Amino acid sequence: MSIENFIAYNPVRLHFGKGVTDTLGETVRQYGKKVLLVYGKGSVKKYGYYDKVLGQLASAGLSVREYHGIKPNPVVEDVRKAIALGKANKVEVIVALGGGSVIDSAKIISIGIANEVDPWQFMMWQTMPQKAVPLVNVLTLAATGTEMNAAAVLQNPETGKKVGFVHPLLFPKDAFLDPSFTVTVPKDYTAYGIVDLIAHALEAYFGGGEPSVVDRITLSIIRDAMAWALPLLNDLKNEELRANIMLDATLALNGLTSYGKTGGDWGAHALGHELSILYDMPHGATLSIVYPAWLRLQSERLPKRIQQLGEGLFGTSRVETTIKKLEEFFTSIGSPVRLSEAGIDASRKEEILNQMNKNQASGMVHGLNDEDRKRLVEWMV
Amino acid sequence: MSIENFIAYNPVRLHFGKGVTDTLGETVRQYGKKVLLVYGKGSVKKYGYYDKVLGQLASAGLSVREYHGIKPNPVVEDVRKAIALGKANKVEVIVALGGGSVIDSAKIISIGIANEVDPWQFMMWQTMPQKAVPLVNVLTLAATGTEMNAAAVLQNPETGKKVGFVHPLLFPKDAFLDPSFTVTVPKDYTAYGIVDLIAHALEAYFGGGEPSVVDRITLSIIRDAMAWALPLLNDLKNEELRANIMLDATLALNGLTSYGKTGGDWGAHALGHELSILYDMPHGATLSIVYPAWLRLQSERLPKRIQQLGEGLFGTSRVETTIKKLEEFFTSIGSPVRLSEAGIDASRKEEILNQMNKNQASGMVHGLNDEDRKRLVEWMV
Repeated sequence: MSIENFIAYNPVRLHFGKGVTDTLGETVRQYGKKVLLVYGKGSVKKYGYYDKVLGQLASAGLSVREYHGIKPNPVVEDVRKAIALGKANKVEVIVALGGGSVIDSAKIISIGIANEVDPWQFMMWQTMPQKAVPLVNVLTLAATGTEMNAAAVLQNPETGKKVGFVHPLLFPKDAFLDPSFTVTVPKDYTAYGIVDLIAHALEAYFGGGEPSVVDRITLSIIRDAMAWALPLLNDLKNEELRANIMLDATLALNGLTSYGKTGGDWGAHALGHELSILYDMPHGATLSIVYPAWLRLQSERLPKRIQQLGEGLFGTSRVETTIKKLEEFFTSIGSPVRLSEAGIDASRKEEILNQMNKNQASGMVHGLNDEDRKRLVEWMV
Repeated sequence: MSIENFIAYNPVRLHFGKGVTDTLGETVRQYGKKVLLVYGKGSVKKYGYYDKVLGQLASAGLSVREYHGIKPNPVVEDVRKAIALGKANKVEVIVALGGGSVIDSAKIISIGIANEVDPWQFMMWQTMPQKAVPLVNVLTLAATGTEMNAAAVLQNPETGKKVGFVHPLLFPKDAFLDPSFTVTVPKDYTAYGIVDLIAHALEAYFGGGEPSVVDRITLSIIRDAMAWALPLLNDLKNEELRANIMLDATLALNGLTSYGKTGGDWGAHALGHELSILYDMPHGATLSIVYPAWLRLQSERLPKRIQQLGEGLFGTSRVETTIKKLEEFFTSIGSPVRLSEAGIDASRKEEILNQMNKNQASGMVHGLNDEDRKRLVEWMV
């Protein structure tokens, strides 16, 4: 029942609902006239989101430079190039159009333009930014929660690291969440997004601190996502179902679920990142494999917490039943729960373990050692 | 399942936990050197909170003027006097030390000093403020949620009105919530605070819009408050129990519970305000009388919503059982559920009805007419 001391602060203005981008132009104009528009590999053009955003920026009389080609597992090299473009054009505001990879990249671009530091130095926590170019995002994928938080994850293929950076200057100014911008997300990535949001809630749940209203809220978010998941996957164009999952994803990682905790654990995420680096696996797909294994490992150490989780989610206090039911849920939405289901066979165990050990993948609250990782990989194959 | 369009924005920095006021001085200094300290009738002096706050402000080298004597049902006259004092002394920042009445008053003082308008004009929504003096609050009562929102309620004895004003300029800059500042709240007011926070959650729950994750969260807050209420009332000095109720109260009315709704209903609050005006009753005590009556009235019109409420709170789908269980809860914590329990006998029915009709007490979503109010008063006596 003890609530840990915390500071809650989230200045992002969230615009939620169908048609909210109708005010995008006037919103962006508050921050400047020279815009850097950042997006991914062009699906936003195919589905008309790009035209809508560009139309808004044009009608507000803004000049727009573009950086596109951000990869699904975003790499620092793109961020460096976008920073150079932004600096050369003295951009005053950034608009990120896309999912987590685009918005995360845009966050680091925003501090990269405003400070004379190589962006990987931020990611390595070697330098703190002093200022940031204002960032506005238009979300096209319900998953990471980055739209309303101050975190970003990037990968550096040269060093083989995928890492996160968190700083108040990374808060976007405005986030535009129109569920109709997500109806074109294919079934598999819709499912991975749901896994991701549930994993974020679980990371918060297994953070430091005792149960409080915050845990109740966290479990509410997971239950809600589980309730809407299958209906949505069977009706991908349904904007109302999209809206529910979109709101769940934002609430799962906008700070709320960590009030009064000492922070999330993030051990399962750290392990999942290693799988993404090795096999370029979608983030959500790594998490549905890692989390059941992680829960099996922790069932000896945190039986009471997992029992409470089972009671809150599935009405069971049996730990193994809880893990099985979670696996069943992931399977039901088409996300893998074993590496073999993702086409990675048991012969890769050594390679995976080496990668995880090399980067000492571990949690912030519940530490993992080499022996733990060996057991985890056995459960994952 | 339809989530209404909404904008979520809450820039308040919430400092939560024992000892957080250790950074009060440096926090206030960011905003200016000339401080107006606003508080109530002196209990903050008796229990040492005043000394702690003054010590912090002094050690930060700030000059302090004081306005004290804010009443539990705050009146505009005090606000006018404080504005005059603030203007005469060119105060740059306001520190409010107290509960809802003090912080609500301080919010209107902050726009009153910054704009050349009689404060009652804001309360009547006749003039919008253009700026505000920065406001920092130190909370001493878990109840109203005002510490982290942009609303204020004031009473005008001359016109017999108790009304609310909401504006983004009313957001405090920082809110300091140290549960140890609330351990001296007596049993009855602790209970009224719990009623108030539950009533806020209910107003949100009965706002416009269909069930979503937000309703799940709202019910989580109510369940949490109900779970901690009796343990706290039997152990008033327990800071951990105080912390749980304090966080519940803040979350019940900081915007979260209205995401995706068209706004709360506030009909029960409007009715309660009339009882406060007539008999100077504590706000929470009016709500435990009004809400059961309001639910009885709405049981014909909103059976499904009340059924879902019962399922979420008490595991029953029977409407009358839900209302009875809510009454039992209020009774168990010592808050009245009938006017007679508050010493107001049935001979006052006419007087109450006239007052409620005169001000057309009604909800924003579920309107009330004279006939409704007649039935409501019958249920309240």
